Amino acid sequence: MTIKLGLVGTGTVGGGCIDILNAHADSFARHYGINLELVRVCSRNPEQAQAHGVSDIFTDDYQEILSDPDIDIVIELIGGTTVARNVVLGALAAGKNVVTANKALMATHGQEIMEAASAAGKEIAFEASVGGGIPIIDPLKHCLISNEILSVMGIVNGTTNYMLTNMAEQGSDYSEVLREAQLKGFAEADPTADVGGYDAAAKIAILASIAFNSRVTLDEVFTEGITHISPVDLEAARDMGYCVKLLAIAHRTAEGIDVRVHPTMLPLTHQLATVNGVMNAIYVVGDAVGETMFFGPGAGAGPAASAVMGDVLDMARRLQAGVSPLVGCTCTDDLPIVPMADLKTKYYIRFTVADRPGVLSATAGVFAKHDVSVRSVIQRGQKSGGIVNLAYVTHTARESNVRAVLDEIAQLEDVLRDEPSVIRVED
Amino acid sequence: MTIKLGLVGTGTVGGGCIDILNAHADSFARHYGINLELVRVCSRNPEQAQAHGVSDIFTDDYQEILSDPDIDIVIELIGGTTVARNVVLGALAAGKNVVTANKALMATHGQEIMEAASAAGKEIAFEASVGGGIPIIDPLKHCLISNEILSVMGIVNGTTNYMLTNMAEQGSDYSEVLREAQLKGFAEADPTADVGGYDAAAKIAILASIAFNSRVTLDEVFTEGITHISPVDLEAARDMGYCVKLLAIAHRTAEGIDVRVHPTMLPLTHQLATVNGVMNAIYVVGDAVGETMFFGPGAGAGPAASAVMGDVLDMARRLQAGVSPLVGCTCTDDLPIVPMADLKTKYYIRFTVADRPGVLSATAGVFAKHDVSVRSVIQRGQKSGGIVNLAYVTHTARESNVRAVLDEIAQLEDVLRDEPSVIRVED
Repeated sequence: MTIKLGLVGTGTVGGGCIDILNAHADSFARHYGINLELVRVCSRNPEQAQAHGVSDIFTDDYQEILSDPDIDIVIELIGGTTVARNVVLGALAAGKNVVTANKALMATHGQEIMEAASAAGKEIAFEASVGGGIPIIDPLKHCLISNEILSVMGIVNGTTNYMLTNMAEQGSDYSEVLREAQLKGFAEADPTADVGGYDAAAKIAILASIAFNSRVTLDEVFTEGITHISPVDLEAARDMGYCVKLLAIAHRTAEGIDVRVHPTMLPLTHQLATVNGVMNAIYVVGDAVGETMFFGPGAGAGPAASAVMGDVLDMARRLQAGVSPLVGCTCTDDLPIVPMADLKTKYYIRFTVADRPGVLSATAGVFAKHDVSVRSVIQRGQKSGGIVNLAYVTHTARESNVRAVLDEIAQLEDVLRDEPSVIRVED
Repeated sequence: MTIKLGLVGTGTVGGGCIDILNAHADSFARHYGINLELVRVCSRNPEQAQAHGVSDIFTDDYQEILSDPDIDIVIELIGGTTVARNVVLGALAAGKNVVTANKALMATHGQEIMEAASAAGKEIAFEASVGGGIPIIDPLKHCLISNEILSVMGIVNGTTNYMLTNMAEQGSDYSEVLREAQLKGFAEADPTADVGGYDAAAKIAILASIAFNSRVTLDEVFTEGITHISPVDLEAARDMGYCVKLLAIAHRTAEGIDVRVHPTMLPLTHQLATVNGVMNAIYVVGDAVGETMFFGPGAGAGPAASAVMGDVLDMARRLQAGVSPLVGCTCTDDLPIVPMADLKTKYYIRFTVADRPGVLSATAGVFAKHDVSVRSVIQRGQKSGGIVNLAYVTHTARESNVRAVLDEIAQLEDVLRDEPSVIRVED
C-alpha cells in the first residue's frame, strides 16, 4: 500500500520535504515498510515547483488537492490563518489527514481544527509548528504523559535569540544586530512577528495547551518583545550572573496557567542559558521526570521538513495499518489564565533619565509608594548628552504594582528620556 | 476497558511506577481515556511491596504474573540478563505486552526479544533503558525517522558525569570523588559498571541499533572507563578549551558503524559540554534536522518511572483501540562495525614517568617510529617523588598506531610509573 501525499506550499519547508522524499523514500520502505508518493503539489509559484522537479504534478489550485480522492495526507505549508485555514479544514472535511507547520493557525484556530479532525475521524499533526526540527510535541503527547507537567519554557524564536546572543557577545545595539540578522537571512524585512514576541507567543500557546491539557490561544498570551533591550541591560545581567533571553513561559499554578512571552533574566547556571545563536530549546518540568530540555535548530528548510516528514511517516504507518486516530484533542480541562496583573516575580527595570539631581529620589519614591521593594539601584553605562541609565532591581513584587510604578514614573515631569526596559527575572 | 498491569520488581523504579499510578490514574482516564489497573506485583522483597501499599496483590513468583490471563502488560524492572530474560520472553510467549527499563538485557538479547515480540504479535518498549526520564528512543523511532542519522553521542551515565564534573570543579582526585559519589548515593558500592563504561556501552548499543537501523550488541562496543583520569587531565583539557566527558559515541561512516565508549575531550563550545553533574544528554545529528540534543535526569525513581509509565500509557492507548503493534524491529540493515584499530582521531595521552633525562626523547622517539605526529608535549602538574607527568597531544592518528606507541612505551625500561591516561578528542 502506498500513501499518497498532496503538498500545498513550495517555499523553504515545502522544498525541504521534496528533498527528503527524493533522498530517502527507498529507505522509508526498507526500514519501516512505509511507502510514500507525492502525487500533487500546489503553489502560487510554478518556478519553485520547477526548481524542485515537480512541475508534472503542479497545480495552482489547492482545491485540486482537496478533491483528489487518491490523496491520503495533505501537507499545508503556506502559513497564515486565512487560506491555510481553508486548506486544513477543507482537507479534513474531504476525509484527508493533515500535517501542518502552521503555528499561527494552530494557536488561533486549534480547537476548531482539532474538532474538525475528530468529526472527520482523521488525524492532524503539527510537530513542525514549534521548535522547527526539535521533537517536542510528540514527546509531550506520548513520552511524558505520565507526568503532571509543571512548566514549559522555551527559547522558541531563533531570530531574537541570535540578536540577543550577538548583543551580549559584541555589545552591539539593537538596530545594528537587527540589520546584521536581516543581512544573514535570520530576520525578515519586517521583523515584527519575531522581535515583537508574537511568533514565540503562538508557540507557547500550542505547548501550554498540550502540556496542561487545557486550551490556550494566542490572544491569551501576554507578549512583550525585545525592541527596548540594549547592550547595557545585557551587561547588567552578566554582572548579576544572568543572561537575557526572549523566553516563552508557561507555568501551572494553583490559580491557573501563567503564560507569557517577554525578555527574561535567567541565571547563567540554567540549562536554557546555554542555548545561543539561532538555536532553540524547550525546557519541560514534570512532577516525575524533573527537568528535561529539548534542543535543536528552530527553523530552516532541513529542520522544519524533518519534523513535517516525521509526522507524515508516523501518520502513514498508521494509515497503512488501517488504524483510526489514536490521539485526538487532549484539552480536557479548562484552566483559567492567570491575569498578568497578578504575576509575582522580580524585575529589572532600566530607566533612561535626565541627568539631574532629584531624579533618583523621585523615581525611588514612586517604587516605595506602590509597595515595590527595591533590592538595588545602580547607574549603568555612560552619561551622554544629559542622559543617564538608572537600573533598578526589585525584590519579588506584583506586576500590577510594578505597572503602577512605570505609569507614574512616565508621568513625572522631565524625568524619562525613553521607554523603560523591563526584564522579568526567572529564578 | 481497563488495561491490567503486572509489575515485576519493586525497587526504586518499580516504586516510582506505583507512585505515579497512585497520583495520576484519574488524570490518565480524564485526559487520555486510558484506564490502568495494577493487578499483581512480584518481588523478592515483600517489605518493598508493603512500603508501597501493594501487599494485597503481592507474589514472590513471577510465573503467577505470566500465567494470569487478565494481565495485558508486564513491566519488568528487576534488571540483569538471566531472570529478567525469562520474565520478558515468558511474558511475550504468554501473549502479554512488555515494558522494560533493562539496558543490559536489550543490548545483549535485543534481537531475540524483538523476534519473540514479533512472533507473539505483541509490543516491547524500553524507553527507560537509555537516559532515564529523557525521551530519546521514541523520538528516534518516530519524530526523526525522516532523517538519515549521522551521529548519536551521549552522556548517558550520571555517576561518571558527576565524578568528572566534580574532579574538574574541585580538582579532587578519582578515589576522592568516587567516595563522595558513593556517600551521596550517586555511585554503587561496586562501581565497575559505571566507572568502567559498561553501563554506557549498553546504552549506546541500543541507541545505535535504532539510529542506524542495524543491530549493535553490547560486546561490539569498544569500552574504556574513567579510572585513569586525574585532575591534571581535566586541567589540561580546560587549558586547551575542552572538557572531559565519558562519551558514548556512534557515528555512521562509509566503512560502517563507529561505536565506542571512552573518556573524550570535547570543545567547551559543544552543547554536550554544558551537561554537568548527574544529568544526562543525548546529542543526535540527522542529515535533515542537523544537531539536536535531549537533556534530563538519567536515573532516579521519578525519571525512570516517568519513562516506564510513558511506555505503558502509550501501549495501553493502542491496546484499548485494539491496534496491533505498529513498530517492530527496525534493524533492517546489517552494517559492519568499524574495527577500533581503524579509528582516526586526535589523542591526548598523559604518561606518568620517571623524572630523569632521556625520558622525553625516548617517548617522543616511539611516537615518531609509529608515524604518530605529535602536536604538543608538555610537562603537567607538580614533580613529586621523582615522578612527572608528560602530556602528549597528537594530530589525527590511527588507533592501531597509537596502540603500538602505548605498547612500546610500556616496554621501555624505567620509564612508566603508572598506566597512561588516554583521552580521545572529538572535534
